[in-house]
Amino acid sequence: MDKLFIIKIGGDIINDEEKLSPFLKTFAAIKVKKILVHGGGKLATKLAGDLNIPQQVIEGRRVTNADTLKVVTMVYAGYINKNIVAQLQANGCNAIGLSGVDGNIITAHKRPSDISPSGDGIRNIDYGYAGDIDSINTDLLQLLLEQNMAVVLAPITHNNEGQLLNTNADTIAQEIAKAFCKVYDAHLIYTFEKAGVLSNVEDETSVLKELTYKEYKELQGKQKIFAGMIPKLDNAFAALQTGVKKVIIGKAENLSDLINGNSGTTIIYE
Amino acid sequence: MDKLFIIKIGGDIINDEEKLSPFLKTFAAIKVKKILVHGGGKLATKLAGDLNIPQQVIEGRRVTNADTLKVVTMVYAGYINKNIVAQLQANGCNAIGLSGVDGNIITAHKRPSDISPSGDGIRNIDYGYAGDIDSINTDLLQLLLEQNMAVVLAPITHNNEGQLLNTNADTIAQEIAKAFCKVYDAHLIYTFEKAGVLSNVEDETSVLKELTYKEYKELQGKQKIFAGMIPKLDNAFAALQTGVKKVIIGKAENLSDLINGNSGTTIIYE
Repeated sequence: MDKLFIIKIGGDIINDEEKLSPFLKTFAAIKVKKILVHGGGKLATKLAGDLNIPQQVIEGRRVTNADTLKVVTMVYAGYINKNIVAQLQANGCNAIGLSGVDGNIITAHKRPSDISPSGDGIRNIDYGYAGDIDSINTDLLQLLLEQNMAVVLAPITHNNEGQLLNTNADTIAQEIAKAFCKVYDAHLIYTFEKAGVLSNVEDETSVLKELTYKEYKELQGKQKIFAGMIPKLDNAFAALQTGVKKVIIGKAENLSDLINGNSGTTIIYE
Repeated sequence: MDKLFIIKIGGDIINDEEKLSPFLKTFAAIKVKKILVHGGGKLATKLAGDLNIPQQVIEGRRVTNADTLKVVTMVYAGYINKNIVAQLQANGCNAIGLSGVDGNIITAHKRPSDISPSGDGIRNIDYGYAGDIDSINTDLLQLLLEQNMAVVLAPITHNNEGQLLNTNADTIAQEIAKAFCKVYDAHLIYTFEKAGVLSNVEDETSVLKELTYKEYKELQGKQKIFAGMIPKLDNAFAALQTGVKKVIIGKAENLSDLINGNSGTTIIYE
């Protein structure tokens, strides 16, 4: 089976040109099939601020009213997606920027107002146009990957009735990896600001080389895992459970080493 | 040769949901290969206004400074492109939304500051990040068209060095039609607010059934052709000169009739 890297780029790096540029250079040079999934929450928050649209984020999920949906669609699928693709092209990597609506890649439904994303009970929060994934259609992605094109994916999905939805990019990366794990040897890499999962959230050097599900639950019990990391790790374990070969979490600046296994935390399901 | 429709949607219809929806329903139902090229200038102007970014338009071309480039990238490649694709999907048409940077479809260069777009002399106007097309790469488009996917194209291009550029959508439609005219039987349809080319700009019913180059130049000489129409017609004649089978100009609401030849103005090169 061919290897496929699904790489989620997250955190501050998207709005930091000095870090983004070498990241994209490294991504462009990856010789195997590859999909880059991005968010861009900070730039969306900035634009919403400039437009006087108040933002509310609960458990890392943005409450997406109609105005905010317009903002994230513009920022994610427009500004960020096209700038990343332009930089990849400049680095000799033939990339194509898509969202979940293109080629019907990702269908989703509007999250019911009474379900919390972490699944820990009824909260009665209306997340607005937040989309929970129903299905992944790999046809278009596979067609493009087989042409050695790199796909850059923005976290906008649709309900197949004309409604766009804002969907968590970590979840998209996980679902794409799961959908491909029978076709490709799928490796899922989550990049963010930290060098990996920390055993002590206050100590940047306490990176765990590996993390099992049991250890994760122990750290979570001791409140050693910071809130933003929980959905990321839940996604990672869910992916491994359904056939994804490897999940690695680490710093975006260390992308080469993450790929080579010389940096970050490798998530292990056992 | 298979037939290919390249349809430019322009004018007010993009921000008029009541007109856009039936237009997209008609487009979705077209049985031959099809590419929809869109602009979205009015929505871009609105967003620029909301963000206090002053706009300047000269001869129908937007002066594109860095802030304005961000606005048009967000509005064209993000908001408008993804909403159109979502509506096409809802109408059972498997569409994919792209810009000129994706798959390296359109490379362009920043317009030199001393050349006017209409080519009538030196003006010393700096259009900023306005891109004039260098080349069209049909590989990706053909791959998608052969899968019976409809392509929705936003008028953002790149210079292959990482710089996005704002490019006139009419020109893109023309260049795409020209690039495909050896592969497909390419028909170019420009839609806008009026029912066709008018022999009297003040009389909406004075639609010309056909327009030759000689007649166009005569009307232009008598100042009977309104300014916004001139680049459209220049594009139309240039396209016919290079092998495009047919160019039709008419009202977006009449799309079915434009395709059937029962509405609009057919441009004839002779």
